[in-house]
Amino acid sequence: MSAPSQRDPFDPDSFEVVLVSPRNPLNIGASARAMANFGFTRLTVVAPYEKHWREARSAVQAEGLLQNAKYAERLADAVADCALVVGTATLTHRKPEQPVVALPDLPKPLHRAIQSGGRVALVFGPEKRGLTREDLSCCHLLAVIPTHAAQPSMNLGQAVAVCLYELAKTEPPPLKSTKTRKKPDSGSLDLLAGVIDKVMLAADYSPASMHQANRHDVRLLLRRLELTEPDARRALGFFRRVERKLAGLHNPSRSKS
Amino acid sequence: MSAPSQRDPFDPDSFEVVLVSPRNPLNIGASARAMANFGFTRLTVVAPYEKHWREARSAVQAEGLLQNAKYAERLADAVADCALVVGTATLTHRKPEQPVVALPDLPKPLHRAIQSGGRVALVFGPEKRGLTREDLSCCHLLAVIPTHAAQPSMNLGQAVAVCLYELAKTEPPPLKSTKTRKKPDSGSLDLLAGVIDKVMLAADYSPASMHQANRHDVRLLLRRLELTEPDARRALGFFRRVERKLAGLHNPSRSKS
Repeated sequence: MSAPSQRDPFDPDSFEVVLVSPRNPLNIGASARAMANFGFTRLTVVAPYEKHWREARSAVQAEGLLQNAKYAERLADAVADCALVVGTATLTHRKPEQPVVALPDLPKPLHRAIQSGGRVALVFGPEKRGLTREDLSCCHLLAVIPTHAAQPSMNLGQAVAVCLYELAKTEPPPLKSTKTRKKPDSGSLDLLAGVIDKVMLAADYSPASMHQANRHDVRLLLRRLELTEPDARRALGFFRRVERKLAGLHNPSRSKS
Repeated sequence: MSAPSQRDPFDPDSFEVVLVSPRNPLNIGASARAMANFGFTRLTVVAPYEKHWREARSAVQAEGLLQNAKYAERLADAVADCALVVGTATLTHRKPEQPVVALPDLPKPLHRAIQSGGRVALVFGPEKRGLTREDLSCCHLLAVIPTHAAQPSMNLGQAVAVCLYELAKTEPPPLKSTKTRKKPDSGSLDLLAGVIDKVMLAADYSPASMHQANRHDVRLLLRRLELTEPDARRALGFFRRVERKLAGLHNPSRSKS
């Protein structure tokens, strides 16, 4: 099936499709083909099963796209340069920790992020279990495809096609005259979260048993706050200062240098 | 991937998904799964490859739907009781003989047909070649998915998912207060076309070499005219009368009876 061509809805360099640990080579191939169908070019695969990944690369109508796909060990690395990370998710099992947006309403925030000069990522989890809680802590938003209660779970390749169709068909809104503020990328937020984490430890903020939970909450909090890039830079400077000061308290000789 | 459930956009009995000669069992399964995802229940398979069809029926998350699928030898039979038949098509090879509608604009005419009391069918051709010219002569409209020029051709299972997503997410428009007129179903139009065909032959309307082409054109014409059901009934009565009269001219003894 095909149709008259359309113009690119997004600058191809601004939009990343990310597949986390896909299991089925056919789904990897189908995802790449849907990308080609709707004019998306940048694919990153996170921690794929090596055998399936090799198989997928030689078997579809979008070979070039798969040959050029990026590889990352962790989702946080894959989306480090993105200002908006959208996870696709099942809401049946887990209470969401992020704002949830139905797919038909997704184009607006994506276009807005790109118009502010940021890159965006749309992240798909593995076939059976979806994105983990750790993966989701990299996401600013969760997108859900409105499906039927009796069979809510979609095939991965079909879910990718439906999402990209929706994004490709929606024209970007006219640029607002008010100046849009650049958002920090995901890597900057992780850097900030890491320093805050050290400060929490050094300040004996909470018992060790709470450490993991606090780390997770800080990652989510930083994504919810909608910091601008200068906000994030200032906060990083501030917490680094605090971190150094606290380290000096434990080791006075270092604090003088 | 899944999401909060939604209400059924169409009365399940009013909407038929038709796959013509699908080759790949995985695509048959994927089509059925997408139907279940978006709340569609009625599937007809036309002239499937027997082996592939058997394989598909035992291998997906929508077994019930496949077990209950209808079977037809020809597309005309599969859609005989439908008032609106929409073919999905590639526009790269062939100049379309029907009105073409982009997928995002398809929900409106479908809802209108159902509100007039008719059944509708969405028809998908085989993976490689798409619907034949003969198949397309059963269709009132062609629907196309807006895809990218560099890779316009979609995988069948993904095309089905994208189409059903678009239809499922669109609310039916409010019922118009003006009375909507019931449309003749596809079988009635074929009956009328058949009688007109006989009249053309009996009247020596055109050389034998033009017969096939004229048949085809009449089928298309009848779908383009937007006849109401009473229009079609009256036309059938009229052409039957003409047919009988012409037969009498060749065989005067029969015309008296």
